[in-house]
Amino acid sequence: MSLSSWNETATKQAILDFLARAGDENNPGYIPPTERIAAFDNDGTLWVEQPMPAQTGFLLGKLAEQVKANPALAAEEPYKSIVNRDPAFLQALSQQSPDAGVTFLNAIGSAWEGTSPEAYEAEAQAFLAALKHPRYGRPWIELIYQPMLELFDLLRANDWRVFVCSGGGRDFMRVFSEQTWGILREDVIGSALQYVYQGGRLVRSNAMLGNVALGPGKVEHIYDRTGRMALFAGGNADVDLEMLQAARFRLVVVHDDAEREYATTAASEKLLAAGQQGGWVMVSMKDDWKIVYKD
Amino acid sequence: MSLSSWNETATKQAILDFLARAGDENNPGYIPPTERIAAFDNDGTLWVEQPMPAQTGFLLGKLAEQVKANPALAAEEPYKSIVNRDPAFLQALSQQSPDAGVTFLNAIGSAWEGTSPEAYEAEAQAFLAALKHPRYGRPWIELIYQPMLELFDLLRANDWRVFVCSGGGRDFMRVFSEQTWGILREDVIGSALQYVYQGGRLVRSNAMLGNVALGPGKVEHIYDRTGRMALFAGGNADVDLEMLQAARFRLVVVHDDAEREYATTAASEKLLAAGQQGGWVMVSMKDDWKIVYKD
Repeated sequence: MSLSSWNETATKQAILDFLARAGDENNPGYIPPTERIAAFDNDGTLWVEQPMPAQTGFLLGKLAEQVKANPALAAEEPYKSIVNRDPAFLQALSQQSPDAGVTFLNAIGSAWEGTSPEAYEAEAQAFLAALKHPRYGRPWIELIYQPMLELFDLLRANDWRVFVCSGGGRDFMRVFSEQTWGILREDVIGSALQYVYQGGRLVRSNAMLGNVALGPGKVEHIYDRTGRMALFAGGNADVDLEMLQAARFRLVVVHDDAEREYATTAASEKLLAAGQQGGWVMVSMKDDWKIVYKD
Repeated sequence: MSLSSWNETATKQAILDFLARAGDENNPGYIPPTERIAAFDNDGTLWVEQPMPAQTGFLLGKLAEQVKANPALAAEEPYKSIVNRDPAFLQALSQQSPDAGVTFLNAIGSAWEGTSPEAYEAEAQAFLAALKHPRYGRPWIELIYQPMLELFDLLRANDWRVFVCSGGGRDFMRVFSEQTWGILREDVIGSALQYVYQGGRLVRSNAMLGNVALGPGKVEHIYDRTGRMALFAGGNADVDLEMLQAARFRLVVVHDDAEREYATTAASEKLLAAGQQGGWVMVSMKDDWKIVYKD
């Protein structure tokens, strides 16, 4: 439980100090065990998200298949932008921007309408099994930040309950959360379509459960799931801002490591500014991490 | 972890046998730990629900207050039925029947619209602190079935994760789940209104998250929360039928103890029939439990 992939920097010390205070009944920073909820964004916080989040490729592939099966769709959004590889659209998508639009969300909603959880999961699993990262040539599923896994272990050892809260799909992450993060399916929070139980089976509808889990939606989903705020929160992008603001310990993963990972501030400008102003814990991948990816 | 408040009957043995099989890798009934999810209804399964579920009184009181503040409401449903104490309406409500109606659900939805989680919880807590059971004269919050708490302990000792899934309000149960059941807020599943995060605070809306957690809605909410079916499920009423059908171990609490609790089959006829036909584990409060309420 020693954060062994973290360098001996002020960042590591800040984490250790916070956990020590939170665990000490005589310290004003004490947090009762029931309230020790930690939540982390996924893309860019737990694994690589450049050049585009893994799930975005999954969704684009699915919608492109639908156009193949029904070419008339190519005249409508978002299929039109997908078929034409519209740069502004893809840019908005890659940054998990709400600007990617309602038509995209609706298309995702209807893409698996009527399918079973098993059918959806089989597709997600097949996609992930085949997905290699364009730069590293390694399976994307292996491109998990080892230091963050060690942080999970440390939090658990200090009686924190660790959740993932991603704007990405709850059901997409659940297919790999247990093996990859050691996080049970029930501790995965994300944007979600509603399933209805009909004739003894669950069937996916096209209705979202609550808002997209981005920005304020992350806080909403965490409260829905846990009845609390996450007092320890980690993220890396503007869509994580509210989740971190609502926390007591705010950890920002800063992508400043062009050599081992990426150096970019795209779609993170607001978060980085808030973190610097607020004295949040800014994790430099370059300086604070001995290694980036688990072996 | 010995189910010490349970008599040495076939019921107790069936529970122990199932857990032994589920825990034995060499047994065809083995269930991997990640899949060991247990879910229990609340009213009538974990505590007394006669003559009317505790939360129903809370809701009726709230709506009656609203009529006092705005007498014009008395002309509309469900306020009209509440003010007139309409027997059919109260009967439907007391049995958690969907017939209690859409107007009632909508009224509940709007009753706390715009309030904070803290404000809602303070009201629920004040109500529960004052609520005595009309027959026993004891605080309702104490009228928990001791044998079920022991079953929770036994399940946990066998690496099952215990959830409550009630048609009642998720937020209502969360105010007492940790102290009363030893169940964390995040493991409480129930009917829920959506909160939105605005200006740095959570505000209750009037929109439900998914369906009411009754009947098929229980399976839907359990899947939403856990990504799985509950393989061990306990209930006592027709609205628990689907949750039990979807499980592998089905436990039915049978209210056959007029002396210590109640003897009634109202709104449980379908469940009792399914349980008897299917060879489910029928818990006779009279014969299987040494004591009913915790001390």
